Amino acid sequence: MSASLLETFPNQFPNREYEVEITCPEFTAVCPKTGQPDFGTIIIRYVPGDKVLELKSLKLYLFSYRDRGIFYEHSINTILDDLVRVVQPRRMTVVGDFRPRGGITSKITAQHQAQAG
Amino acid sequence: MSASLLETFPNQFPNREYEVEITCPEFTAVCPKTGQPDFGTIIIRYVPGDKVLELKSLKLYLFSYRDRGIFYEHSINTILDDLVRVVQPRRMTVVGDFRPRGGITSKITAQHQAQAG
Amino acid sequence: MSASLLETFPNQFPNREYEVEITCPEFTAVCPKTGQPDFGTIIIRYVPGDKVLELKSLKLYLFSYRDRGIFYEHSINTILDDLVRVVQPRRMTVVGDFRPRGGITSKITAQHQAQAG
Amino acid sequence: MSASLLETFPNQFPNREYEVEITCPEFTAVCPKTGQPDFGTIIIRYVPGDKVLELKSLKLYLFSYRDRGIFYEHSINTILDDLVRVVQPRRMTVVGDFRPRGGITSKITAQHQAQAG
Amino acid sequence: MSASLLETFPNQFPNREYEVEITCPEFTAVCPKTGQPDFGTIIIRYVPGDKVLELKSLKLYLFSYRDRGIFYEHSINTILDDLVRVVQPRRMTVVGDFRPRGGITSKITAQHQAQAG
Amino acid sequence: MSASLLETFPNQFPNREYEVEITCPEFTAVCPKTGQPDFGTIIIRYVPGDKVLELKSLKLYLFSYRDRGIFYEHSINTILDDLVRVVQPRRMTVVGDFRPRGGITSKITAQHQAQAG
Amino acid sequence: MSASLLETFPNQFPNREYEVEITCPEFTAVCPKTGQPDFGTIIIRYVPGDKVLELKSLKLYLFSYRDRGIFYEHSINTILDDLVRVVQPRRMTVVGDFRPRGGITSKITAQHQAQAG
Amino acid sequence: MSASLLETFPNQFPNREYEVEITCPEFTAVCPKTGQPDFGTIIIRYVPGDKVLELKSLKLYLFSYRDRGIFYEHSINTILDDLVRVVQPRRMTVVGDFRPRGGITSKITAQHQAQAG
Amino acid sequence: MSASLLETFPNQFPNREYEVEITCPEFTAVCPKTGQPDFGTIIIRYVPGDKVLELKSLKLYLFSYRDRGIFYEHSINTILDDLVRVVQPRRMTVVGDFRPRGGITSKITAQHQAQAG
Amino acid sequence: MSASLLETFPNQFPNREYEVEITCPEFTAVCPKTGQPDFGTIIIRYVPGDKVLELKSLKLYLFSYRDRGIFYEHSINTILDDLVRVVQPRRMTVVGDFRPRGGITSKITAQHQAQAG
Repeated sequence: MSASLLETFPNQFPNREYEVEITCPEFTAVCPKTGQPDFGTIIIRYVPGDKVLELKSLKLYLFSYRDRGIFYEHSINTILDDLVRVVQPRRMTVVGDFRPRGGITSKITAQHQAQAG
Repeated sequence: MSASLLETFPNQFPNREYEVEITCPEFTAVCPKTGQPDFGTIIIRYVPGDKVLELKSLKLYLFSYRDRGIFYEHSINTILDDLVRVVQPRRMTVVGDFRPRGGITSKITAQHQAQAG
Repeated sequence: MSASLLETFPNQFPNREYEVEITCPEFTAVCPKTGQPDFGTIIIRYVPGDKVLELKSLKLYLFSYRDRGIFYEHSINTILDDLVRVVQPRRMTVVGDFRPRGGITSKITAQHQAQAG
Repeated sequence: MSASLLETFPNQFPNREYEVEITCPEFTAVCPKTGQPDFGTIIIRYVPGDKVLELKSLKLYLFSYRDRGIFYEHSINTILDDLVRVVQPRRMTVVGDFRPRGGITSKITAQHQAQAG
Repeated sequence: MSASLLETFPNQFPNREYEVEITCPEFTAVCPKTGQPDFGTIIIRYVPGDKVLELKSLKLYLFSYRDRGIFYEHSINTILDDLVRVVQPRRMTVVGDFRPRGGITSKITAQHQAQAG
Repeated sequence: MSASLLETFPNQFPNREYEVEITCPEFTAVCPKTGQPDFGTIIIRYVPGDKVLELKSLKLYLFSYRDRGIFYEHSINTILDDLVRVVQPRRMTVVGDFRPRGGITSKITAQHQAQAG
Repeated sequence: MSASLLETFPNQFPNREYEVEITCPEFTAVCPKTGQPDFGTIIIRYVPGDKVLELKSLKLYLFSYRDRGIFYEHSINTILDDLVRVVQPRRMTVVGDFRPRGGITSKITAQHQAQAG
Repeated sequence: MSASLLETFPNQFPNREYEVEITCPEFTAVCPKTGQPDFGTIIIRYVPGDKVLELKSLKLYLFSYRDRGIFYEHSINTILDDLVRVVQPRRMTVVGDFRPRGGITSKITAQHQAQAG
Repeated sequence: MSASLLETFPNQFPNREYEVEITCPEFTAVCPKTGQPDFGTIIIRYVPGDKVLELKSLKLYLFSYRDRGIFYEHSINTILDDLVRVVQPRRMTVVGDFRPRGGITSKITAQHQAQAG
Repeated sequence: MSASLLETFPNQFPNREYEVEITCPEFTAVCPKTGQPDFGTIIIRYVPGDKVLELKSLKLYLFSYRDRGIFYEHSINTILDDLVRVVQPRRMTVVGDFRPRGGITSKITAQHQAQAG
């Protein structure tokens, strides 16, 4: 399963609330209805807990969607679920900004907030 | 009636508050006073409940305004009413950003908030 | 008096708080000190009560300033007063963004909030 | 036929080579294959001979394409043919810059040069 | 007549071909058909001969169009004629870039070339 | 072979030199050295002879590069060769504007000119 | 002292909280360490009390810094102090956005809030 | 140690809460994994206490990273720690906006808030 | 005289025609009519002969205009004359792009071409 | 010597005149006078002969300037010389667009044209 591609390294500043924003303008998947490719930009914003997301592993993880048939809403929520499980951030937002289809552009924004311990 | 053109599919992540933003820069209707075409961009922002708006049906729905004589304020509020009835979102905003007429540009923004159950 | 040029039509969605934003980049008046023309953009943002501002009448109203000698601050506040009296909005903002004079640009922003009934 | 909608008025400066550029961002026609609307911007650049194109008649002419099924390449060349016949310019260029379909944007540029008399 | 408002001062570098470009974004006249104001930007580019155009007098000259009913094409060609007569440049271009009317924008470009002596 | 995906339709204005510009911002192939995906925008500019390129077939043709390992310079020249063979244009330019790799951005521009008959 | 250059006129709308924003992109002073000129844009935002700042006097006041050796932080705070003393606004912000020195750009933002009477 | 390069001067307006924003688009360090240079923009925003950061010393401090192998997250948090120790601001934010690597852009934002005395 | 401030160093590639473009957005002089400061950007483009213009000396030279009363056209032609005399370039262009006065912006472009030896 | 870092691969389309444009916004060297780092963007445009420049080797070559003290004009002409020797292009242009120093920005453009065989 592709979530196993994701790796982390230890956060050296675990006591400070700092934010990491990652922008990946080269996301592509396949529309499950038409079989045609979709293209978009993925933006990930998170406050790390004990782990920091390793960027090369994120790149490989996002490339695993290249041949997968999946709806916009589904892909963004699945990316958020996978990243939260592996990175265990204090909070995280995933945005997918997709290119126009039929003259219509879509942007999906999903957020996760860690439960207070 | 054109609202019957709108279709939805089940929301696979109903427990998460995520936002969908849809931009349609190809909206056109007819001015009821002059009979001349109006042009604008429609932006729809919503948090889905149990249903997600199907984009192709939205496209057909918006095209049903092509020959309809309707004021700016009326069209945006009617689009919001139709979408709320069919999609039953947690909350929704519809914006209409119309091209200049007589040197004057208009933007209408209407919002719906679901009643707390 | 020029405020009598302003017309309204009934708001068909009086129970919903929706916003109308109108941009008029073709405003011109006369500087009362130098007699030279001033130029600027007027932006009007309001939430209608029972009435909606008719745009053609707004255009004629704004053109009535063409030969009037008036300071920036005075014109924006007078436009707000005239519009509030005729449109009776829930709330309204008028902005005047004027072109540079002597290398200095001015922007005036005035707001009106209806008294709670 | 819609070319009969086009009107001209006499050029008061027929001895000077001056250029007129007209931009119409509100062009819409219908795709003859899918029946779906197409949208684009039409740009007309010409050097008048004895006649100048009347803008209101141009607007009505372009609106006559609203319900016509026609390919991009065909519409731009037809507009050029109609305008050249009515306006008889020294030279004229018509550009159609159409909005994306299937992720692909098209721009068509056609030119006419009057024969040396 | 308003051309008499234009003034010049002697060119201190008459042997060098240098260009002056002047941009006036505050031009307004009146449409002779509708009586409504038109707005645009006037750009003047010229290579001076023995005279340089004085800017304050240009400003007053352009303001003399404020209440004049005149078509776009006519105003630009008239401005060019007036400036050429007073400034006697080696060559001059006048551009008028007018704001949209009925969704259509117009730009007029007229040029003058001094006869070889 | 993927060039067989390309289709044309007859040019209805074969006697006029008009230009077609097509922009496809969703091109992706695979780097033959690293096996990682490359992304870029393909721009095609051509003057049709007797045939016009059908856009849907172009889209399918470009998607056939999705899993192909190919260098930038090779892909652009191959696209030009394939298009020239099928469309037989009077002249054609293909541009590939690729996203940065290692902080370096590449743009390749190749042109074809038909031999004078 | 240069603060004496500042003038005001009475606020005709003292009961309304409206904002004035003034942008002066032509500010220059001298670096007290190097003796070299500094350049920047001054932005002043305030809500007038009983007085409105006269713009021509502001221009002369800002020009009085032209030959003065003063640090960025000092100049912005001094301008705020001088303006507050003369204009007595309900609240005021002064921003100085200075051009790069040694590859580094500085922006200083200082605010004043009138004491509740 | 490079933090010793940082210098301050006394804040002449210690009783006012004003903000200083410094932008350094010329930051470069070395990736500890690949040994290749990284490039980015550092933005520092702070409210001074009794001291103001001297800009030339900041420049030298940032240049001390030129040959240091350090991860993005580490460098931004270390810069914040060093600046807070030397400048003792009321609050401070450090942002690092790094150029794309492998098609992915990163932005790190870390904040410090002084303890209430 | 201020031209004596200009310095050069030997061109190490005198046999190659290469171009140097220098942009100085911090030029200021004084209007000889009003005594008020003028502001603009100076752009210098030249092909060196045996000498290259030293930038620090250019900076000092341009600052020598800070208190000089001089018209736009005069300053640009004088800068060109001074630079040509000292740098002896193969060819040189000086552009002055001045900020608006009375709503009117001016740009002056003067060129020098070395005589064929 | 660093030019030995540059590598090429065979051009598969040696009979077609096509252009390659490479943009490297991460160039840095050291000012030989001040010892301070300089930053800029290098743009290389060339028409390949029998060889194509390998991008990874270009990156390493440009990084070899990181600790070298060299003037702007010298570095651009040296890069051109090195590239021409190794790549043997039909023609090549190298542009260096450097960040401001003392408020002044420099851009150097050098070209090479192969001798007709």
